[in-house]
Amino acid sequence: MSDEFVVKSDPELWEKLGMDVARFSGMPPMLTNAYRNIFLSQQNRPERMAYFDDMVANIHTGRIREICDAKDGGKPVIGTFCVYVPEELVVAAGGICIGLCGGAQGSIADAEKILPRNICPMVKSAFGFKVGKICPYFQVVDLVYGETTCDAKKKTWELLDRYVPTHVMEIPQMKRERDKQLWKEEVKDFKVAVDRITGNETDFEAVADGIRTINAKRAALQRLNSLRHHNPSPISGKDMLIIQQIAFYDEPVRFTQKVHDLCDELEKRVQAGIAVAPKSAPRILVSGTPMALPNWKLHSIIEGAGALVVNEESCIGTRYYKDLIDEGSSDMDQQLERLTERYMKIDCSCFTPNDDRIEQVLKEYEASGAEGIIDYCLQFCHTYNIEAVKLREACEARGIPFMAIETDYSPDDVGQLQTRVEAFIEQIKG
Amino acid sequence: MSDEFVVKSDPELWEKLGMDVARFSGMPPMLTNAYRNIFLSQQNRPERMAYFDDMVANIHTGRIREICDAKDGGKPVIGTFCVYVPEELVVAAGGICIGLCGGAQGSIADAEKILPRNICPMVKSAFGFKVGKICPYFQVVDLVYGETTCDAKKKTWELLDRYVPTHVMEIPQMKRERDKQLWKEEVKDFKVAVDRITGNETDFEAVADGIRTINAKRAALQRLNSLRHHNPSPISGKDMLIIQQIAFYDEPVRFTQKVHDLCDELEKRVQAGIAVAPKSAPRILVSGTPMALPNWKLHSIIEGAGALVVNEESCIGTRYYKDLIDEGSSDMDQQLERLTERYMKIDCSCFTPNDDRIEQVLKEYEASGAEGIIDYCLQFCHTYNIEAVKLREACEARGIPFMAIETDYSPDDVGQLQTRVEAFIEQIKG
Repeated sequence: MSDEFVVKSDPELWEKLGMDVARFSGMPPMLTNAYRNIFLSQQNRPERMAYFDDMVANIHTGRIREICDAKDGGKPVIGTFCVYVPEELVVAAGGICIGLCGGAQGSIADAEKILPRNICPMVKSAFGFKVGKICPYFQVVDLVYGETTCDAKKKTWELLDRYVPTHVMEIPQMKRERDKQLWKEEVKDFKVAVDRITGNETDFEAVADGIRTINAKRAALQRLNSLRHHNPSPISGKDMLIIQQIAFYDEPVRFTQKVHDLCDELEKRVQAGIAVAPKSAPRILVSGTPMALPNWKLHSIIEGAGALVVNEESCIGTRYYKDLIDEGSSDMDQQLERLTERYMKIDCSCFTPNDDRIEQVLKEYEASGAEGIIDYCLQFCHTYNIEAVKLREACEARGIPFMAIETDYSPDDVGQLQTRVEAFIEQIKG
Repeated sequence: MSDEFVVKSDPELWEKLGMDVARFSGMPPMLTNAYRNIFLSQQNRPERMAYFDDMVANIHTGRIREICDAKDGGKPVIGTFCVYVPEELVVAAGGICIGLCGGAQGSIADAEKILPRNICPMVKSAFGFKVGKICPYFQVVDLVYGETTCDAKKKTWELLDRYVPTHVMEIPQMKRERDKQLWKEEVKDFKVAVDRITGNETDFEAVADGIRTINAKRAALQRLNSLRHHNPSPISGKDMLIIQQIAFYDEPVRFTQKVHDLCDELEKRVQAGIAVAPKSAPRILVSGTPMALPNWKLHSIIEGAGALVVNEESCIGTRYYKDLIDEGSSDMDQQLERLTERYMKIDCSCFTPNDDRIEQVLKEYEASGAEGIIDYCLQFCHTYNIEAVKLREACEARGIPFMAIETDYSPDDVGQLQTRVEAFIEQIKG
């Protein structure tokens, strides 16, 4: 299997999208190698991971062609950087919503020609992908929709707008009634911006459909995450991570079906006692900042050290799917109200106070049967970094093993992180 | 003069305020030395700087006793960290508003026992002053009022609240009508919080009085800054900086009078051709992040290299006093509306977009007769750091010499900064 897997290339398509083809051509072979080493080398994977492997193989080709076809058919294609942008409204308009967050070291040098060095690697990576013309998704979108969840993103969108039309929605910083009202207005503006691309105003039924579709996707991920919590786990943390990453660029109806298919297999594995690691393998919950594709650094280190990641409390993780939208609305205002309410439940560290998140991490810790928490912080992410103070205290008060890691995409600190993670796992083993 | 100047001590007062007296006792002698070396060593200072020197001498004693007396008389004492907190409403309630931003390296180690290391030194310094009990102002306030202008501050207030009652007002991130409305609600909440301390609701006349008092202070600083723009300058950049720092803790009516007294002297100096540096001295505008007391690092380096700082486009600078509140309101709602409008003009980099600030820097560059811009960025201040990209471009387009500096409070990089600043000055001299 490992030798058959190849991340596909299509220079003609890339050329058409205005990419730097010469430079980008090196990317698929690199990704092929990395994916083989990190994912396909795993023992005893569920068979139905094959679909998700295939999604990775087609990440720069097949999926892009699907999006181009939709676009040619007049459908809006919106790029986003945050789980706060309501994809339900894009789907309602018949469009495609793509999570653009950058997870690769390779585009950071492009960004640093313009941006300061000491900001978040995810922001730099995303910006660099566009500036360097080395991301087909960035090339295919009608516009990108940024938000104000952190200082670095907020100010970077002003510069990104020079390369691709960039709208910005204001995420409030508190969760009081006046904040919800502000946020609801932003949601309405977003709907107008999406509808403007199609030229049609999406109606109640279309929005209801969009909500149902994305609710179903989130529910499927909830089911998958619950199954994964079984001890011994029927699926690895790395495979869970890649599925959660694919959730941001795959077609949602198909993705939902494929997640359920995998869940069916995992249920059988649980019944049959088939696991990816022995019950004795230390179980780690990872909390904190998102891991955008192809950021698999921490999971590789943790699972390479013989432990298992059993939960991601992250935007590319439970924060994306833990809440559904109430589907019982009777008019559009109520729909948008309930959509707003659901999004206000996201416990991003951009809020103050945000103690609900601490409770949520502890809840997921219990639910996942984890034995320790590694809080993952992208370098210079001040909000998660400072919030980790409270999370550490909460863990210490409950005797939960806790370790905070701050890192970027560079391989430079891998050795050091391995040492720290191994020591942490030894501590858990007791 | 230099030998007479001493920053005074009052261990009994400090003990009463619950300070760490043993540790704090070292502070006044250190400050005495620094002030003598940096300020009193200057040649040909205006005589009426004597008042401001005296304010520094009394920073830990006389002024604290005044504030204690006011507090004993039932007046509210509010600590703030941002020019966004409307001091007019504190003054209206008969109270005292103190700018608490920390500008010293000495308290950072205290903060780093709790906070991450790689956040803004100003936030760490302020937090450390409270945690270490080494700031009399932090000890004397009824409460502090934080805001959400940056990620690091926003999340640090959650922790600061454990040490001193900390309210937070939400500063919007854009400047549309809905943002102004949100901000106006925050202003109203602030008024309620201040009035709650006195037990009396301040009325229209009191608010009008507060607005007049602070308008007068800002107008005096405008007059001073205009006089300073004269070439050759009748006052140094370092002296201007200390006055602008004192503006945040002095009694406003007295301060306003003393600024005007100094202006009268400066007018005479301008007429008589008395200057602090020859007309040939390169003139530098400093833009960017605030310099809280006793942060005199960059000004010392610039003026030590033979140039003159002729303008601070900064919160401790023009951003604090460039705008006044329209005094022609006929009822309180109108007062708060106009107050809100004035505050929304502050061009903090927390806003997106914030292109007005670029225009403002260029305007001040012209007005001050500057010959180059040094953009000063506190380390890890992402918003100003990224906004510097646009400022650099604007300067390059106009042929304005521009240099961006990112630094903290540590003396470690002084040598390197000296070299860079000297090279920049040579470039200006041509």
